[in-house]
Amino acid sequence: MFLFRIFLWSVLSFSLVSQVPWIQAQEPIQPIEEMTPKNRNLFELGKMLYFDPRLSKSGFISCNSCHNLSMGGSDNLQTSIGHNWTKGPINAPTVLNSSMNLAQFWDGRAKDLKEQAGGPIANPGEMAFTHELAVDVLESIPQYQTLFQQSFGEGGINIDRVTEAIAAFEETLVTPDSRFDQWLRGDESALTADELKGYQIFKHSGCVACHNGPAVGGASYQKMGVFEPYQTDNPAEGRAAVTGIDADRFMFKVPTLRNVELTYPYFHDGAVWTLEEAVDLMGRLQLGRSFKPHQNARIVAFLKTLTGRQPTFQIPVLPPSSNSTPRPKPFQ
Amino acid sequence: MFLFRIFLWSVLSFSLVSQVPWIQAQEPIQPIEEMTPKNRNLFELGKMLYFDPRLSKSGFISCNSCHNLSMGGSDNLQTSIGHNWTKGPINAPTVLNSSMNLAQFWDGRAKDLKEQAGGPIANPGEMAFTHELAVDVLESIPQYQTLFQQSFGEGGINIDRVTEAIAAFEETLVTPDSRFDQWLRGDESALTADELKGYQIFKHSGCVACHNGPAVGGASYQKMGVFEPYQTDNPAEGRAAVTGIDADRFMFKVPTLRNVELTYPYFHDGAVWTLEEAVDLMGRLQLGRSFKPHQNARIVAFLKTLTGRQPTFQIPVLPPSSNSTPRPKPFQ
Repeated sequence: MFLFRIFLWSVLSFSLVSQVPWIQAQEPIQPIEEMTPKNRNLFELGKMLYFDPRLSKSGFISCNSCHNLSMGGSDNLQTSIGHNWTKGPINAPTVLNSSMNLAQFWDGRAKDLKEQAGGPIANPGEMAFTHELAVDVLESIPQYQTLFQQSFGEGGINIDRVTEAIAAFEETLVTPDSRFDQWLRGDESALTADELKGYQIFKHSGCVACHNGPAVGGASYQKMGVFEPYQTDNPAEGRAAVTGIDADRFMFKVPTLRNVELTYPYFHDGAVWTLEEAVDLMGRLQLGRSFKPHQNARIVAFLKTLTGRQPTFQIPVLPPSSNSTPRPKPFQ
Repeated sequence: MFLFRIFLWSVLSFSLVSQVPWIQAQEPIQPIEEMTPKNRNLFELGKMLYFDPRLSKSGFISCNSCHNLSMGGSDNLQTSIGHNWTKGPINAPTVLNSSMNLAQFWDGRAKDLKEQAGGPIANPGEMAFTHELAVDVLESIPQYQTLFQQSFGEGGINIDRVTEAIAAFEETLVTPDSRFDQWLRGDESALTADELKGYQIFKHSGCVACHNGPAVGGASYQKMGVFEPYQTDNPAEGRAAVTGIDADRFMFKVPTLRNVELTYPYFHDGAVWTLEEAVDLMGRLQLGRSFKPHQNARIVAFLKTLTGRQPTFQIPVLPPSSNSTPRPKPFQ
């Protein structure tokens, strides 16, 4: 009898103690973990580069121009504005939690953040610079020379180190502690009844098939328009532009739904401005479902619980150019 | 004898104690005082508005775009880039220490920071919005409604309150504790011998006639080109555009030299990129003097001691738009 009580006590204790991880393990979405910079020097250098418009031909556009860390890591425009007010071809995805994506850009053409970071610098419709000129600018600035040496040792400045530093900063841009994550970690009071019902609908109607994992997306390519074609003027072909395979047409990387309340407008063409419309369209095009208004409202209420703690840090103070720094050419 | 010694001791003590204020009082430049926000709520609201591009038609340009607090409160461009990549008519003055200016803009057409803040929002070549539309945007955002109420009480959002909040933030953007200010406060080791010689030349050759006070400028209008006319393609007429008086042609507000190392390029047309050239031109055009190369180098060395502690604060996290927020129109 005594041994049996010990046994019973052990079983009960184990299930009580393990209840929180057990809940988590059952859910298709996992909480976002806190992230502290691995290398403080590299983080600070990357932050400066991220905010430095001298990486553009005009001296006016920085990474933060289109992936604005005051605005959910996006620009809240349908498509971005680039050099000479060029209208971008596609909606700027958020940089927040982007390290969790299986690849970067909507079509996955960059394998990681480091590879991505070099793209806009040299894109004539974005920052319109070249990697060589960007490095020339940085090399002409004594404080940057010192900072690169502190982070990388000898060997000077090159685009590989520039993009590595930017990526090291971007990797820290995670948004833990959303109300949904609090719930995932066992705080049942973190969600209202409607938000929880919204999550149940989200889970049981098929949204989680693509929007899962810690980033609630970003882990696969999926066809935009499964049950019905997606109507758009945007010519982007998606993954096919990378693979050349016709079956990959309109296959796009599933966007993260973390902070989706902040990252409007939605879809690769940025055509949809409200979560209500986005949920409605996704239901019909991807799942063949028409959510009723109260279901739609609950899903939207759930989605707003995915807004996490935004990265906060001191704005960087950039080192001044020197007399030998190549000058910006905004109007050439 | 005893009384005499007491007397002598008092005199000596007094002169020792008062030496530092005495040095300061004799100098034509005064140290910048620390500034703490008078009203924390208003400061935080003003900071958000300063960084919010939704005050522009495009949703892309904020106060910080051209008065970039990572870059000495300026954009380091000859003239600024505005809506639709419009080339601005004049060099963007730094916002740092701008509360000390006798008036705002190069021609002094705004009497204070509050009046200034409304200008770029409605200027078709800058943010290209209207005050009414800017207020409509803010009113559509619940968190802004709350923040305005916390700062101003009832009465809602209007352009008067918007510009008051921005000005309240801008007033805090001072840069104390430069090496020159440390010297002014009595730390003789704060300047090198060359820097101190540079200051003596600056003082005794007449530069201080216009560049004086805590901001080392900003306190008067002066004619650009006294001994020789200033050669420029820039059509700005200066103060005459405000007063209509012909004698005010080419009279511009004397710019602050605080942080001048960071606020290149120089002059109202932004035509000069190096301090060496700026000092040379000022000597010849304003003072009828040709500084010798070693004099020029010493003045430049002195000017670089005017770089103060840059404002540092957490980047603001902006509240999301609502479904009813008017959408940005970058390409209309």
